[in-house]
Amino acid sequence: MCPLNIITLTTDFGTGDTYAGTMKGVILSINPQCRIVDLTHQISPQDIMGGCMSLSASYGFFPNGTIHLAVVDPGVGSNRRPILIETEKYFFVGPDNGIFSFILSASEVKNVFELTNNSFFLPQPCSTFHGRDIFAPVAAHLSKETLPACFGHSLTDPVIIKIPEPVLKNENMAEGAITHIDRFGNLITNFSRSFVRNTFSRESFHVEIRGVSFSKLLQNYACAEKDELFCLFGSSGFLEVSLKNGSAKKMLKAEKGDKIILFKK
Amino acid sequence: MCPLNIITLTTDFGTGDTYAGTMKGVILSINPQCRIVDLTHQISPQDIMGGCMSLSASYGFFPNGTIHLAVVDPGVGSNRRPILIETEKYFFVGPDNGIFSFILSASEVKNVFELTNNSFFLPQPCSTFHGRDIFAPVAAHLSKETLPACFGHSLTDPVIIKIPEPVLKNENMAEGAITHIDRFGNLITNFSRSFVRNTFSRESFHVEIRGVSFSKLLQNYACAEKDELFCLFGSSGFLEVSLKNGSAKKMLKAEKGDKIILFKK
Amino acid sequence: MCPLNIITLTTDFGTGDTYAGTMKGVILSINPQCRIVDLTHQISPQDIMGGCMSLSASYGFFPNGTIHLAVVDPGVGSNRRPILIETEKYFFVGPDNGIFSFILSASEVKNVFELTNNSFFLPQPCSTFHGRDIFAPVAAHLSKETLPACFGHSLTDPVIIKIPEPVLKNENMAEGAITHIDRFGNLITNFSRSFVRNTFSRESFHVEIRGVSFSKLLQNYACAEKDELFCLFGSSGFLEVSLKNGSAKKMLKAEKGDKIILFKK
Repeated sequence: MCPLNIITLTTDFGTGDTYAGTMKGVILSINPQCRIVDLTHQISPQDIMGGCMSLSASYGFFPNGTIHLAVVDPGVGSNRRPILIETEKYFFVGPDNGIFSFILSASEVKNVFELTNNSFFLPQPCSTFHGRDIFAPVAAHLSKETLPACFGHSLTDPVIIKIPEPVLKNENMAEGAITHIDRFGNLITNFSRSFVRNTFSRESFHVEIRGVSFSKLLQNYACAEKDELFCLFGSSGFLEVSLKNGSAKKMLKAEKGDKIILFKK
Repeated sequence: MCPLNIITLTTDFGTGDTYAGTMKGVILSINPQCRIVDLTHQISPQDIMGGCMSLSASYGFFPNGTIHLAVVDPGVGSNRRPILIETEKYFFVGPDNGIFSFILSASEVKNVFELTNNSFFLPQPCSTFHGRDIFAPVAAHLSKETLPACFGHSLTDPVIIKIPEPVLKNENMAEGAITHIDRFGNLITNFSRSFVRNTFSRESFHVEIRGVSFSKLLQNYACAEKDELFCLFGSSGFLEVSLKNGSAKKMLKAEKGDKIILFKK
Repeated sequence: MCPLNIITLTTDFGTGDTYAGTMKGVILSINPQCRIVDLTHQISPQDIMGGCMSLSASYGFFPNGTIHLAVVDPGVGSNRRPILIETEKYFFVGPDNGIFSFILSASEVKNVFELTNNSFFLPQPCSTFHGRDIFAPVAAHLSKETLPACFGHSLTDPVIIKIPEPVLKNENMAEGAITHIDRFGNLITNFSRSFVRNTFSRESFHVEIRGVSFSKLLQNYACAEKDELFCLFGSSGFLEVSLKNGSAKKMLKAEKGDKIILFKK
């Protein structure tokens, strides 16, 4: 697979500072033809798991050869390694801190390289901004078809963090968690459609979350009743708790990490 | 008119989630040459009228052939139709819920198509994210010069929502509303320059808003006095209430939808 | 030097309004090949110094020939001049209000032009939005290799605002200020590494800020202790006050402009 001229960015830099913009300058200085796409810069500061899940939900919609650059990097400047992952379809560049766990535990990984060849870095990399001085230039050189193996030596033990999965408490009950809350206040959980189907043999269950119970499972937001909590399987394939034209987050005062329990009906 | 490789995005997805980024991945997977421009992703959740007015203020500054993609879509997955509008200069893709009212009530519309040809959609469109699974791929195929008529059959009754207009209460008095408040706290109203001219025969009037009266009409922000409310005709041609180096919104505790009255002087 | 097809944007327009998006439409209407990079649109409203410092930290990472367009423009429509600056490596377009001070006081400036040739403006520029009607079209025409001198006559007295510098109170003590607070709550000061070296002969000092004293100077965030304030020289070369995995801003209730004092150790 050949790298494309497309680099996506996922960071916790926000858009008020010029950190992300500066990385774009570095990329364009090396490859002025590059097209740069912001996935998001609003990952919570230092939230490696949040970066992992955001990238996980969207990387697969990009064309083959896309380079996904992610920087949520509390260990910058320490001995955490900078890495490049090559899969069947994509490239991933960033810190070796678990942010790429979703792809590392999948079967499609071809190679993982530690970025050791500093001829592809900016001169004298700053110990607090590898996004600018190491990851951006490496991604840019990669987009110009530098071979992955040129960037460093192969590595076999990349850091993988465990993505929290639902737990079957007994044959009638499973406990999961809110993994993300979106701008609409939808509570996205870690119950995948296949887990629910396999566990409950059909898509029918009671939900308990923050002391509230309900059991409506719908196909879309529009067919819900006003002021009524309901569930649906959202666009990333996971169960969501929603409120029509309102915020389930606000109604339930829910936070990321909160418990959600499903009971067999 | 031929479509350009330029697609603009107007949504209520925010920039903290990767919904908008995922749409960009879908577009680039179909047409890697496409240039994607964010108009805004900060429309208030489900605020169709807000999306309509934001797009209305800016679409006309893009080159002929631009494809304007808008997704504020509370009815996603219901029987609301997905549409493509072809005008003399532009294309518009999104839900048939009134978000394109500004253009549908103008004379330049050539065709409106319901998007029924699912060979241009992603396989098995999710019932909660047509932005990703229907609108993004249709816009991308359109940017590759697929003919508009290929996407579905013609439609004659697109949804048009009434954009609130000022009302003449008597020959000396007109009542309008705040339609938008910008980042500076400027209160943008629905009084167009031509309405004011036609109504009051000259640009001279008293303003009453939230119990406060004033009558200064200026040409720019710089010539105002400190701490003094004033009006000007803003960059979109509508009357604004402003405060120099401050926020008229904060000073007046104003909200979108608030009444504003003009009196003949 | 030839202009590139790359235009960066630094404004106080935010991303909730379509002001920045509209400028992009104007640019693409004139030069559809242009690549537009957002540095930031989150400069505080009317904060010319903030815009100056943001642009200053990042402009130099872009390729030669990049056009940097900046609009923080409280004087729009008044007699403040619109300008174009040509340096050895870059072009800068925006209001003559000091936002380009960092470059104007450097030696690399070749020419400064007042933008007087209105054949490069949009017809009838609006007195409140020169970003759209003057600066965007000028930058776009420049990106198509229109010669800088075509846009207006040479100017020798551009506005330069003084960027606050640290003051040596006595041979053992220097007083500086917080010039920027980033998304992580890091307090960026105006103490450059060279100032500190020259003043204290080595990088060793006590810090006093908002009644709190400490003296730890580190190389990166990761090697700090939990809940402990420390300093480091950040990615832009200035001294920062930080808190590991936390916000120094919150812990110290610090604000931009706050005093910071260094004592010889």
